[in-house]
Amino acid sequence: MATENCIFCKIAAGDIPAKRLWEDGSHIAFLDIRPASRGHALVIPKEHSESFLDMAKDSEKELFGAVQEVGKKMKESFGAEKIFVLLMGEEVPHTHVHLIPYYGKMPLSLNHEEGLDLDKILEEFGNTGE
Amino acid sequence: MATENCIFCKIAAGDIPAKRLWEDGSHIAFLDIRPASRGHALVIPKEHSESFLDMAKDSEKELFGAVQEVGKKMKESFGAEKIFVLLMGEEVPHTHVHLIPYYGKMPLSLNHEEGLDLDKILEEFGNTGE
Repeated sequence: MATENCIFCKIAAGDIPAKRLWEDGSHIAFLDIRPASRGHALVIPKEHSESFLDMAKDSEKELFGAVQEVGKKMKESFGAEKIFVLLMGEEVPHTHVHLIPYYGKMPLSLNHEEGLDLDKILEEFGNTGE
Repeated sequence: MATENCIFCKIAAGDIPAKRLWEDGSHIAFLDIRPASRGHALVIPKEHSESFLDMAKDSEKELFGAVQEVGKKMKESFGAEKIFVLLMGEEVPHTHVHLIPYYGKMPLSLNHEEGLDLDKILEEFGNTGE
């Protein structure tokens, strides 16, 4: 169900133009207008959900089937070494998966947090044992 | 099939210890020893594959079912606002998915590449039309 004022629902419905790469019955892929690297694209489910964690059971699996398919085509078409995949849920509250081609130069950097107590964290989660 | 000298195959087999959070028949989750934020974990398939794009059809879907399940538990256990999901394929050539809790401070930063010709990129891909 499209939600009012959701920009990605509007793109999925064709009410807002996008540089569309690919589409199937449940998903579309289009170029990110603020790319981290050449060919950076988003894959979104047409059905609205706020985030990957909120997606209905099994639709998250179909989304990643679509991501794999588009990722393989991107790797070949763009001559990328790898395709990075990223979900943040920042900015637009409609599940979207960044596919970011990697050509030998890092398109992102990860922080590193020092001094965390991993055993304590494990305990908080309720670990299943080593 | 485990491949010789693959550290993640050895972790999956229990030959190398890891701070294990969770496990099902085909996947395990454990804490990243170089966390980008508190509770940063990896989910890996037990079966070896070099990358997400190389995974056998449908096993990529099962992997993301596992990622969703672990992500929901992490969000609740750690009190995170969101769980970022990242696949890079750097360092260890065994498919692994980073689950990085977000607590209001960005655990990563994305580059921005200027001056790319999106229409040309679309053409290279062989677009399906706007």
